[in-house]
Amino acid sequence: MKRLRGVNLAQIPIAYVDIRFFVHATENPKKVVEAVRRLLPANHIDEIIFERSNLKGHYGNPITVFEIRIKKREIVKAVVETLSSGLGELDKKALLREIGSHVEKGSLYVRLDKQAALQGEFKLCSADPVRVRIRFKKKKLEDIIKNCRELGLVCVLQCFTQVFAFPL
Amino acid sequence: MKRLRGVNLAQIPIAYVDIRFFVHATENPKKVVEAVRRLLPANHIDEIIFERSNLKGHYGNPITVFEIRIKKREIVKAVVETLSSGLGELDKKALLREIGSHVEKGSLYVRLDKQAALQGEFKLCSADPVRVRIRFKKKKLEDIIKNCRELGLVCVLQCFTQVFAFPL
Amino acid sequence: MKRLRGVNLAQIPIAYVDIRFFVHATENPKKVVEAVRRLLPANHIDEIIFERSNLKGHYGNPITVFEIRIKKREIVKAVVETLSSGLGELDKKALLREIGSHVEKGSLYVRLDKQAALQGEFKLCSADPVRVRIRFKKKKLEDIIKNCRELGLVCVLQCFTQVFAFPL
Amino acid sequence: MKRLRGVNLAQIPIAYVDIRFFVHATENPKKVVEAVRRLLPANHIDEIIFERSNLKGHYGNPITVFEIRIKKREIVKAVVETLSSGLGELDKKALLREIGSHVEKGSLYVRLDKQAALQGEFKLCSADPVRVRIRFKKKKLEDIIKNCRELGLVCVLQCFTQVFAFPL
Repeated sequence: MKRLRGVNLAQIPIAYVDIRFFVHATENPKKVVEAVRRLLPANHIDEIIFERSNLKGHYGNPITVFEIRIKKREIVKAVVETLSSGLGELDKKALLREIGSHVEKGSLYVRLDKQAALQGEFKLCSADPVRVRIRFKKKKLEDIIKNCRELGLVCVLQCFTQVFAFPL
Repeated sequence: MKRLRGVNLAQIPIAYVDIRFFVHATENPKKVVEAVRRLLPANHIDEIIFERSNLKGHYGNPITVFEIRIKKREIVKAVVETLSSGLGELDKKALLREIGSHVEKGSLYVRLDKQAALQGEFKLCSADPVRVRIRFKKKKLEDIIKNCRELGLVCVLQCFTQVFAFPL
Repeated sequence: MKRLRGVNLAQIPIAYVDIRFFVHATENPKKVVEAVRRLLPANHIDEIIFERSNLKGHYGNPITVFEIRIKKREIVKAVVETLSSGLGELDKKALLREIGSHVEKGSLYVRLDKQAALQGEFKLCSADPVRVRIRFKKKKLEDIIKNCRELGLVCVLQCFTQVFAFPL
Repeated sequence: MKRLRGVNLAQIPIAYVDIRFFVHATENPKKVVEAVRRLLPANHIDEIIFERSNLKGHYGNPITVFEIRIKKREIVKAVVETLSSGLGELDKKALLREIGSHVEKGSLYVRLDKQAALQGEFKLCSADPVRVRIRFKKKKLEDIIKNCRELGLVCVLQCFTQVFAFPL
């Protein structure tokens, strides 16, 4: 948590944070919401009310969509702190290495594993995620990378020890 | 269902059928079992008791594994009939086209979408499936393909109108 | 070579064999033809005359296409023998395991590495291959697999020791 | 070409440029070198002498490796100008979108299609490329992106109109 302690709220380079996730027909909505709450500051939990809507999946299967836009500076800061202190170094390296697939039009998309979140762990995943969208004030990729480093969302050190080789 | 009506039980070229699926921590086990029951004959439902065991996922998340081996001829026949009449032509084409990744050591592996199953629809999927393993008596790939055609599990007609082109 | 020695020419279950390959602008056509000749019987080399035509690649780059249809039984038999004795066990396993992507409408497509062929080695590849199409008389996948086994083009033994695991 | 006209040579944020490519056994080395020369300034062509070495490919096939490190400021500038004016907007978007797979330890790797280069066109490719490595003086990803934008190597405008959707 320490990384952002000194950050003045007004200075946070983020416009808002969206959180969005699905609850599938075989799931227990309470359990999924419980998982997502691990990201959210306990002292604001009553203010954070997800909007619900209904979708049909590929096979006509019902899906409940939960979503919220968080603009309140303290909550935005708390969510980013939780992510920053909760994501592991490998995931922060992966975010930086594949930054092009995580950033779109001024937003960083972090997709978190639902099952891990329910255990209080924040891990990147691709299938059926809790999707956190962090909308930055500046939109250029290089500015977003700089912001992400300062916020501790991607690795801070020179971390390009890529696994794959460059045969040519 | 008609396809197998005339098949003598003793002639079914199948040794047994295994059904196996996971229940994740955000899921409601009753809902998942309800989904799987759509595959099973209603008149035998009391005999079909899944064994449960516990796994830990990648992130220490608890997973309950449900599994059963079905050897009783009538139930085997009923499950195969349900699959045969429930799988769509596109899925049957896909099974035949990618038969090499669905058959291993004498068994056909059919992975069904949980959410679709809960709607009474049987659709192939890859992530978090209800896995049905059909163990054949003969083990050669060409024999299994022949059996699958006769049982209506893969497409019967000449169905190789592949989507992808062969540039060379 | 011994595998097909006893096969009566009239019995070969193959209608014809097509060979097709590209020569790119940076290539030396003589070298590429030399590579392809490793597949062909020396005593018939004068009869085997490739048709040439010209293509434009994605970037307007010139490509010369070489192709031939071989119907003469002795040459068909010789090419199949060369493939059968030249392909390694790993490639024969791969062909069987991924048979669905190698067979289309009654033909087996074997794509050989050009550079390996020039060394007298026959290895499966995917990019810029020498493409051999073997058109069988019977068109059902199970019949083609049976024929391929008998001709020694795919592995003969029970060879499904797949590398990938089936987690579910 | 105009983009870099005003850039003071001393200011170029690049330490050196490496060019590296393979000549395969079916290729004509002269043709491949001719393709690579399209990248190089005609007035310095006599100074640019590739080192050659020999590799064995997977199948024992001989490969000749050609490589050179260019440190002379004028030649570095000329190569970067040629790339900057020759790469299309789609490729520059792709470079930025997938920047994480093109940058490693302070270097941008641009892989160019050999056949296109021989036509005087510069197109990204993945298989059998002419590999250009641009080693920057600063090593942070955000600095390299900034440099690449200024040099016209990646798209300059807000160009993240990604094709793929974000379903969640």
